[in-house]
Amino acid sequence: MEAEKQIELLKQRTEVFLGEEQLIERIRAGKKLRVKLGVDPTRPDLTFGHMVVFNKLRQFQDLGHQAVLVIGDFTTRIGDPSGRSVARPILTEEEINENAKTYLEQAFKILDPAKTEVRRNSEWFGKMSLLDALQLARQMTVARMLERDDFAKRYAAKTPISIVEFLYPLLQGRDSVELRSDVEIGGTDQLFNNLVGRQLQKDAGMPEQAVLTMPLLVGLDGERKMSKSYGNYIALNDSAKDMFGKVMSVPDATMWVYYELLLEKSPAEIAAMKNEHPMEMKKRLASALTAKFYGEEAGRYEREQFENVFSKKQAREDMPAFAWDALVPAGAPDASLVDLLAATKLFPSKKEIRRLIEQGAVKIGDRKASGVGERLEKAAAAGTVVQAGKRIFVKIL
Amino acid sequence: MEAEKQIELLKQRTEVFLGEEQLIERIRAGKKLRVKLGVDPTRPDLTFGHMVVFNKLRQFQDLGHQAVLVIGDFTTRIGDPSGRSVARPILTEEEINENAKTYLEQAFKILDPAKTEVRRNSEWFGKMSLLDALQLARQMTVARMLERDDFAKRYAAKTPISIVEFLYPLLQGRDSVELRSDVEIGGTDQLFNNLVGRQLQKDAGMPEQAVLTMPLLVGLDGERKMSKSYGNYIALNDSAKDMFGKVMSVPDATMWVYYELLLEKSPAEIAAMKNEHPMEMKKRLASALTAKFYGEEAGRYEREQFENVFSKKQAREDMPAFAWDALVPAGAPDASLVDLLAATKLFPSKKEIRRLIEQGAVKIGDRKASGVGERLEKAAAAGTVVQAGKRIFVKIL
Repeated sequence: MEAEKQIELLKQRTEVFLGEEQLIERIRAGKKLRVKLGVDPTRPDLTFGHMVVFNKLRQFQDLGHQAVLVIGDFTTRIGDPSGRSVARPILTEEEINENAKTYLEQAFKILDPAKTEVRRNSEWFGKMSLLDALQLARQMTVARMLERDDFAKRYAAKTPISIVEFLYPLLQGRDSVELRSDVEIGGTDQLFNNLVGRQLQKDAGMPEQAVLTMPLLVGLDGERKMSKSYGNYIALNDSAKDMFGKVMSVPDATMWVYYELLLEKSPAEIAAMKNEHPMEMKKRLASALTAKFYGEEAGRYEREQFENVFSKKQAREDMPAFAWDALVPAGAPDASLVDLLAATKLFPSKKEIRRLIEQGAVKIGDRKASGVGERLEKAAAAGTVVQAGKRIFVKIL
Repeated sequence: MEAEKQIELLKQRTEVFLGEEQLIERIRAGKKLRVKLGVDPTRPDLTFGHMVVFNKLRQFQDLGHQAVLVIGDFTTRIGDPSGRSVARPILTEEEINENAKTYLEQAFKILDPAKTEVRRNSEWFGKMSLLDALQLARQMTVARMLERDDFAKRYAAKTPISIVEFLYPLLQGRDSVELRSDVEIGGTDQLFNNLVGRQLQKDAGMPEQAVLTMPLLVGLDGERKMSKSYGNYIALNDSAKDMFGKVMSVPDATMWVYYELLLEKSPAEIAAMKNEHPMEMKKRLASALTAKFYGEEAGRYEREQFENVFSKKQAREDMPAFAWDALVPAGAPDASLVDLLAATKLFPSKKEIRRLIEQGAVKIGDRKASGVGERLEKAAAAGTVVQAGKRIFVKIL
């Protein structure tokens, strides 16, 4: 595909795209672009938030370029402070390795492994000395670092910033030098760090990487960014059932954002969808996202399950109530379960009622009906809910 | 000597003395204190400014304690920004080693080598990894670093501060951990760095060092601190002649500071000296300081030389002038040098004049008189200065 057309596609859904001209030149020259994405294995799972950047990386792969996935096993020991108001906790090497392993499994649910170079930044940082660190630290000023939005806010609020946090962006930038990346992809909060990479490449006399940032995905609450630490997230390794259910829980406005950033729908497609019933569209979204990770069949199955539970809940909320005396002959102290249910006129025949009891599909309160000969006493029956099959609920007053 | 008496002596001339109580305890417990002084071999020579702290270290030695002299061969690669408004230039390893060598020679003009442990901080920093650096950087906040006076000023003035400069105080502090120092001596501008050492020792679970700072010595200009970069300094390896001459050039007020900080005179002694003639006292100061480095004889010799030159200069400034016609018979186009000089009546006899000429001690302008038969022509002689011996100058008009 010609360079301009590629760039047009790659530009979709980005917030910042810097160095476009240089990229066009490199694509024209026939270069397979090295497209860097770094993830720090700070927790055991990736979220749908990561999916936004992974989707973009996948798009590069589909256009024939080389994904370079950097597992920040070394930088995780510092903790990227980007967009956070407190320093991250320190992880052990074991935790980091465990997390890195699951990250890869999850990343390959979206990326094409054949077109992905996986690197760990301990490869180069593990060999670096104190002197190397000092030379790196020399390449950045305190003032420039304090211009970064989150640092500026923390400094103003007198929230401690450890000096080690000033070194993080330099290390991330150094990754770009080591990997000779042509592009770095990241969330919006990575813009500063990605620009540092550009500077360090320039200082090292190599062509600068383009920088491409994606919007941060909003979480299930529809308010804050999706984050493992806010608990408002869907993990890439959540079960199909949880994935479907969590998507169903988002506000309508958030649903359209997910259609855009997770399913990569165009503005025109989304405009058309807005004419449909929102509940139906949310089910389709949940089904499509579940299908992405667990296959079409799973997507369909989870929708069915969800609808069953939903209908049952609906039935229960709307259930009819009957007075004892309206169902049995006047003055009778007890009645057969079959006669009682037949008197509600909710069943086609006594035969159908007997069949349900025999299948064990009839419940009196919390216990299963014992058999077709079961009788209920008036006093005991008062206030009881009888369920027959999945959707019929009857309350006895 | 008992602990309190030692502390009283050690406190003399200090600006800050922190941790006095702990020191008293350690001395009482019979501990030989480890007294750290760090110097960065950034230039080929030490100055009289260093002498102030070296004198204090020597005082510790004289009381039986252990001097630990740290040659900052590693930290010099960063450059201590203390009290400076711009970052220092980077030195090569070779320059650093060369400087370190001459530093030691100079330091031992003041310190007792037998009671001095010399260490280079490359010993431990040369082995440290990037990860060690990060762990060190974690121990300090940006805000605390920006409280340091010089950083605060530079930040406010928007003068760039490199992040590497924030690491310097941490490295200097780390030296104290490695050396388990009981005391750190430094100039006033080292107070912040020395306190970092105290903190890092505490973090490492060891007893904290006392901190003792000395005033910064004022330079030859009597205004700015003595510094190699201001050019207003006396180097410990200046020649005896330069040393004497430079001391003679300081303003009177500065002379008393030198008596106090370099010769360790008490306020009472200085008060008494102020009754003497300032020129005499300055000669004594210059002589004593020269003697400290080159021996008593050299001190005396330089004073004598100085006085000779000074008298000669005086003689030249006051020299008499004679009209040609007043010295020779009227109308004579030339005259013998001997007759000419005899006519000035500045010499006891013609014999003495001849002796001076024969010794080569008579100069006509810039050239030596050729012999006792020399004659001068009127036209050529006009405006010439004739010097005979060291102190007689005659101008012919």
